[in-house]
Amino acid sequence: ATKKLLVLPGDGIGPEVMNEVARVVAWMSRVRGISFDISEDLVGGASLAVHGVPIRDEVIQAAKAADAVLFGSVGDPKWASVGFDRRPEVAILKLRQELELFANLRPAKVFDALVDASTLKPEVVAGLDIMIVRETVGGIYFGEPRGIETLPDGSKRGINTEVYTTAEIERVARVAFDLARQRGNRVCSVEKCNVMESGLLWKEVVTDLHARDYPDVELSHMLADNCAMQLVRNPRQFDVIVTGNLFGDLLSDLASMLTGSLGMLPSATLGTVDATGKRPALYEPIHGSAPDIAGKGLANPLAQILSFSMLLRYSFGMDAEAELIETAVSNVLASGLRTADIMSPGMAQVGTAVMGEAVVRELDKL
Amino acid sequence: ATKKLLVLPGDGIGPEVMNEVARVVAWMSRVRGISFDISEDLVGGASLAVHGVPIRDEVIQAAKAADAVLFGSVGDPKWASVGFDRRPEVAILKLRQELELFANLRPAKVFDALVDASTLKPEVVAGLDIMIVRETVGGIYFGEPRGIETLPDGSKRGINTEVYTTAEIERVARVAFDLARQRGNRVCSVEKCNVMESGLLWKEVVTDLHARDYPDVELSHMLADNCAMQLVRNPRQFDVIVTGNLFGDLLSDLASMLTGSLGMLPSATLGTVDATGKRPALYEPIHGSAPDIAGKGLANPLAQILSFSMLLRYSFGMDAEAELIETAVSNVLASGLRTADIMSPGMAQVGTAVMGEAVVRELDKL
Ligand SMILES: CC(C)[C@H](C(=O)O)[C@@H](O)C(=O)O
Ligand SMILES: CC(C)[C@H](C(=O)O)[C@@H](O)C(=O)O
Repeated sequence: ATKKLLVLPGDGIGPEVMNEVARVVAWMSRVRGISFDISEDLVGGASLAVHGVPIRDEVIQAAKAADAVLFGSVGDPKWASVGFDRRPEVAILKLRQELELFANLRPAKVFDALVDASTLKPEVVAGLDIMIVRETVGGIYFGEPRGIETLPDGSKRGINTEVYTTAEIERVARVAFDLARQRGNRVCSVEKCNVMESGLLWKEVVTDLHARDYPDVELSHMLADNCAMQLVRNPRQFDVIVTGNLFGDLLSDLASMLTGSLGMLPSATLGTVDATGKRPALYEPIHGSAPDIAGKGLANPLAQILSFSMLLRYSFGMDAEAELIETAVSNVLASGLRTADIMSPGMAQVGTAVMGEAVVRELDKL
Repeated sequence: ATKKLLVLPGDGIGPEVMNEVARVVAWMSRVRGISFDISEDLVGGASLAVHGVPIRDEVIQAAKAADAVLFGSVGDPKWASVGFDRRPEVAILKLRQELELFANLRPAKVFDALVDASTLKPEVVAGLDIMIVRETVGGIYFGEPRGIETLPDGSKRGINTEVYTTAEIERVARVAFDLARQRGNRVCSVEKCNVMESGLLWKEVVTDLHARDYPDVELSHMLADNCAMQLVRNPRQFDVIVTGNLFGDLLSDLASMLTGSLGMLPSATLGTVDATGKRPALYEPIHGSAPDIAGKGLANPLAQILSFSMLLRYSFGMDAEAELIETAVSNVLASGLRTADIMSPGMAQVGTAVMGEAVVRELDKL
């Protein structure tokens, strides 16, 4: 059956790295006969420029109707002053919320060819392969009350609320336990239960769920500050980490940076399987919109290409095709091609388009 | 005048590292003629064991009456089940709140002799010297409403509230700007203003204060997730970082771990100068109570000793004496002594007491 994809390149380097995915999509249609029905729309800064809003309702409807969403990046700071409700980031936050994409899967993986790109010693990070499962529709990102109020003396008070319910914690923990069973069978649950009651509940719910449904998986608990340290001290101690929205934001970015190749890392954000068997899903690179290099043809397109490979795997069960892409990317790295972000002495520095073409050339050889 | 110190060793390795400070205090009295009036009391797990509470009111009163508090560590997980209101951590949280110790100064410094102890490449961290100023009496640590409520269906909801006011943000930002003027003259203010209104207010208030009173200091702003990444990518880009309670908790632990020698890092937490000219202050190592090695004589006492040196400097303006301690610690490291946490090939591994004695022997030579 035809697969309905919604492509949302966003702002910054989003559009130029998405161009390279188009080549891979075309290859999949031509060579593997997969039929995609692709529509594209504007989000983030790109939508603000044309429509004055970071995302239109019809784009959200299109995302709901699609089999999967391939997202670029948003966050061009040029729009910082348009107001809190219309900042580019609202695009991704609304998509997560409206499609109830509650589980963000963020692999932090060191590619063998790039072990030297890390600022950490190679002996500390070689072979690193962590999966962070971050809750993405709850916590302090969405809790009410929130806002800025003016006090009688003219000074102000900013408020945000962290809320987690049993059901919200359970469903994301399930995703983590299920993933662990297919990997190293270990889950580390991260919160700040020594200071926050929401963290205390988090720990309780994960502990209960584990005892009830996943006694075969090894479960440990860690405070968020300690986790930040342990990721630097000995990152290979982790298999799957499950945590809330805000801690997940910091810890997954930290974990990605340990690999030294942020431009290489994709992510998937998954919702709940509905009555028709469809599971809403959005795929995006971990890197941001990098406005400083946008439009220069320098950005690394591999994270966006690998996000498409995650899409094939998680949304369509096309593991063989996903692996083809992953192998092609490995081979391109082994051949010595590097974009600026992963450049090292003796390698050949190339731009966005040359890197994208190289992946397709490798696909042709497979 | 006699200096009134309250010593609170706490639980875990707290008491044994505090023992080594006692030697340094004795040296200061004997050789430099400084007169200390020292009282000691129980907090954390040690207080729970004897009094059934993590801290007694009279200890808080004693802390208020003292010129400075020297704190060890609390958090022995053996007390995890006594209930949220009586966990060992309440001791430090209550002291911060009752003495209004709002500015936690956490240096992350790489000692030349220990540059190889870091998991980061030496060329990335050599000479690293960051000062993190963390707000410690506001934010989500103390905001109301908070707690766990049971919903009609028996499931639960955990809630915490992040609150920051103009006044709270301004006073901690002032500390950061003042410190920057004595260092590299650069402040990076960290929040998550693209998601949280409390972060938006944070950024506004820091920006306004800067324009008004500190235009000579270089100010930048960074999102907390990006800061976590930048600390790994290129930590030497930072001079002073100022941030809220929760982000400060994670980022300062992360920054400390970059140095590879957590057991070496002290901290100061400062309040407001009162009408009599006294400024409440508490000094503690950055490391925790490390229950796994407690009582074994293996812990590194240098962070606790350097916390005492910070105390001499910040509470009593005794810079010369503070420097004596810092030089003695440097010399001990140069002589090749190492506790287990900073051990490396070719060095001499020693325990807590031998390390403490070595510092005093070096002081004798100065
Ligand atoms: C763009 C921003 C709102 C977003 C977040 O904070 O969730 C980003 O940092 C991410 O991690 O996907
Ligand atoms: C012990 C704990 C409550 C404390 C905190 O979270 O503030 C500690 O981690 C710290 O950083 O001083």
